[in-house]
Amino acid sequence: MFEARTYIERRRQLRNLLGDSIALIYGHSEVPRNYRDNTYDFRQNSSFLYFAGHSISGMFLISTPDGDYLSGYENTVDDIIWTGPLPSLGELAEQIGVSKIIPSDKLADFLRSFGAEIHYLPPYRGDDVFMLASLLGKSPDEIRSGSSRKLLKSVVDLRLVKESCEIIEIEKALAASWDMYQEAARYISDGTSEYTVMAAMKAAAMDHNCTMSFTPIVTIRGEVLHNHSYSGTMKNGNLLLLDSGAETTTGYASDITRTFPVSGKFSDKQAVIYQTVLNAWKKAVSMVKPDITMKELHLAAAGEVAQGLIAAGLMKGNASDAVEAGAHAMFFPHGLGHMMGLDVHDMEDLGDYVGYGDEQRSGQFGLAFLRMARKLKPGYVFTIEPGIYFIDALIDKWKSEGKCRDFIDYDAVDKFRGLGGIRIEDDILVTDNGGRILGKNEIPREIIDVEGLFQDVLMP
Amino acid sequence: MFEARTYIERRRQLRNLLGDSIALIYGHSEVPRNYRDNTYDFRQNSSFLYFAGHSISGMFLISTPDGDYLSGYENTVDDIIWTGPLPSLGELAEQIGVSKIIPSDKLADFLRSFGAEIHYLPPYRGDDVFMLASLLGKSPDEIRSGSSRKLLKSVVDLRLVKESCEIIEIEKALAASWDMYQEAARYISDGTSEYTVMAAMKAAAMDHNCTMSFTPIVTIRGEVLHNHSYSGTMKNGNLLLLDSGAETTTGYASDITRTFPVSGKFSDKQAVIYQTVLNAWKKAVSMVKPDITMKELHLAAAGEVAQGLIAAGLMKGNASDAVEAGAHAMFFPHGLGHMMGLDVHDMEDLGDYVGYGDEQRSGQFGLAFLRMARKLKPGYVFTIEPGIYFIDALIDKWKSEGKCRDFIDYDAVDKFRGLGGIRIEDDILVTDNGGRILGKNEIPREIIDVEGLFQDVLMP
Repeated sequence: MFEARTYIERRRQLRNLLGDSIALIYGHSEVPRNYRDNTYDFRQNSSFLYFAGHSISGMFLISTPDGDYLSGYENTVDDIIWTGPLPSLGELAEQIGVSKIIPSDKLADFLRSFGAEIHYLPPYRGDDVFMLASLLGKSPDEIRSGSSRKLLKSVVDLRLVKESCEIIEIEKALAASWDMYQEAARYISDGTSEYTVMAAMKAAAMDHNCTMSFTPIVTIRGEVLHNHSYSGTMKNGNLLLLDSGAETTTGYASDITRTFPVSGKFSDKQAVIYQTVLNAWKKAVSMVKPDITMKELHLAAAGEVAQGLIAAGLMKGNASDAVEAGAHAMFFPHGLGHMMGLDVHDMEDLGDYVGYGDEQRSGQFGLAFLRMARKLKPGYVFTIEPGIYFIDALIDKWKSEGKCRDFIDYDAVDKFRGLGGIRIEDDILVTDNGGRILGKNEIPREIIDVEGLFQDVLMP
Repeated sequence: MFEARTYIERRRQLRNLLGDSIALIYGHSEVPRNYRDNTYDFRQNSSFLYFAGHSISGMFLISTPDGDYLSGYENTVDDIIWTGPLPSLGELAEQIGVSKIIPSDKLADFLRSFGAEIHYLPPYRGDDVFMLASLLGKSPDEIRSGSSRKLLKSVVDLRLVKESCEIIEIEKALAASWDMYQEAARYISDGTSEYTVMAAMKAAAMDHNCTMSFTPIVTIRGEVLHNHSYSGTMKNGNLLLLDSGAETTTGYASDITRTFPVSGKFSDKQAVIYQTVLNAWKKAVSMVKPDITMKELHLAAAGEVAQGLIAAGLMKGNASDAVEAGAHAMFFPHGLGHMMGLDVHDMEDLGDYVGYGDEQRSGQFGLAFLRMARKLKPGYVFTIEPGIYFIDALIDKWKSEGKCRDFIDYDAVDKFRGLGGIRIEDDILVTDNGGRILGKNEIPREIIDVEGLFQDVLMP
């Protein structure tokens, strides 16, 4: 948790944006895993964390023009028998600079007493829908369609710009990431399972008192973009793609991808593709500055991908024409990156306003998957994560449709099938006149350094 | 997963119990952690696992008098681009011996076509309520009140008796538990944090390709019964209570509690209380046989607790009178144990029928928390876990009310405050003529063995 003044200031700004509106910022309840009392590890709603800090289930913050209220369960003497002494609701409120409290069993009456619309953010868990329905006296369907666009925009506008205390937390998560990748490298070898590497990374995160900010990808089949299986066994000649992040106790995330050659040395073909991805990464990182759009960075990275693949003979023609036609997207079908903060895809629960403002997403294959296109501002934290993949199903589909035949040499592409996927990802802060790669120590990404990481480990 | 014939036989028995009723056994959907696409580790609904084995989200089994149907999402070519090739719905059905399939987008129409009541189990996640409402064309409130008692009883009656393939899985989880406790002992020492021990146990579970079957308790404050904090630092003189379980990839659980002296040696007071708990454990274990009730075991263990505390001077009078009056419950306020299987509290989502059949729970403090009272049958697997705790808030309350003054020497009790809590728990199978402690290797529980475990570790 941060100091009380941090939350006081955030709530003051929220009140300013809301004018005379009343907002209910709900915390999460526990989620049952296989029965009600066997719950998943509790994860607080990120917007509640932002304004009220406490990672305790069943809490609410009520923002009114006349000040804020904290609501939650007030423990009884009987509870203390099972839980031991716990801070009272009043003490929890004091820790975040709130002076007024409402026990949660009085919250519905309290909200009704305003006789006014209560603004709330769109719920993404079924249990939250029922909870809001019961608190606000509405049907579940009314709740699902009735969230507040005004509150959503206010919260997003505040959370988009990171304060220095938030950057410190993100860099704590990155310190964990650094160890996670060092540990991973110790276990990458011919005959070892993906599972072993995953477990080593998880243990390294735990050593930093961090959880994983998302289910990590640890795979020799990097071309399978949504891959959460760890059943593969590494063989020399494979590439191992590792996409993972840590999450600090305050809820802030890191998100890093690296791709390692299992043998400790890239083959010639792997090196050509790896260097192309790295060039795309460098191009995008070098362009980061206020007022440039994420879409410009994405297209510049796509241009580097096309350029590199043209040089390697897999694509042909002019790189910028190829990007215009979307030909690069057969190799680089996803977006360049996403906002990061209290969520690894920051505020993804709040929808496209986060990445697009009031603009619309493109429908073009590739661009349609870009989570973020808006103009960068100082204080934004986001990922840059270009990649190149050889996806059999996608190549087969495009080839059979003759798609982008002027820009893609399908026969040459066939010779690279089986290479898998390569992605390089880091977390970037937009500064007043450029960008900064976050993390006190950079995790190796140059070919020579990635190969060197193995030599350090294997020949200590 | 088990062989197809296991599931075929279970479903045949279910059809027999259901007669001409139609049942929808729903699998779980993914649960959002902090936004829809960032999900918790998927955990399948246990009853779906029992009848259909697949740990895949969004699946359904439909049991009809004319045979079974498997329903789920049928992957498209576009999906394969992101997921790689996956088994088709037909292949998944074949693996569990089901011959008929219904794509999930046709399921609502299919269910309506019966023109009959569709039986379903009570949902315990909000998202499942919405899913059932949409499938069955009912309101969320109708869904919550409309689950089938007939189906519930049928499923419970089948799942209560464990097959040999299930015992094998539970013993796999216990093999992980054995390593978890060996690893834990390596880290228990003056100045080390509870967190370190928890991380070591988690890593040991992962080495067995197991998850944790519930959020483990690792605490020097064992008297706090619902304690999921790991912020304490061990000191010589403390007891460390470890309650944890592993869960295999097929979903079967273990559940073990041990209490260790941080210094490696129990103090005299600790040893007296520990031995009393162990005697209660032994008493209950020795009585396990078909047709005895769990309530009898509980009361026998309570009798041993009273006997031991009378001998130690903390209680007085006659042990069985004390138990009758519920005086032991100030020290042993919880139930002796619970069913175990695909859930660590097996079928707790299905309510009291699991532990009580058609009987009612007692309202007496202590007995009210007994999760299970029913007659034991061969094939039942359950825990035996007596404990003694010195809970300040509870002692203060009873003392101020003068409760059970004839049986409790409150002045003597005061001298034991701060001792914490001691619990010993193992997993027991009811056999044809007795019981068997599950697990190939027993995890040490005699005082001499627990202390010896430390000597092995500390003086290798």
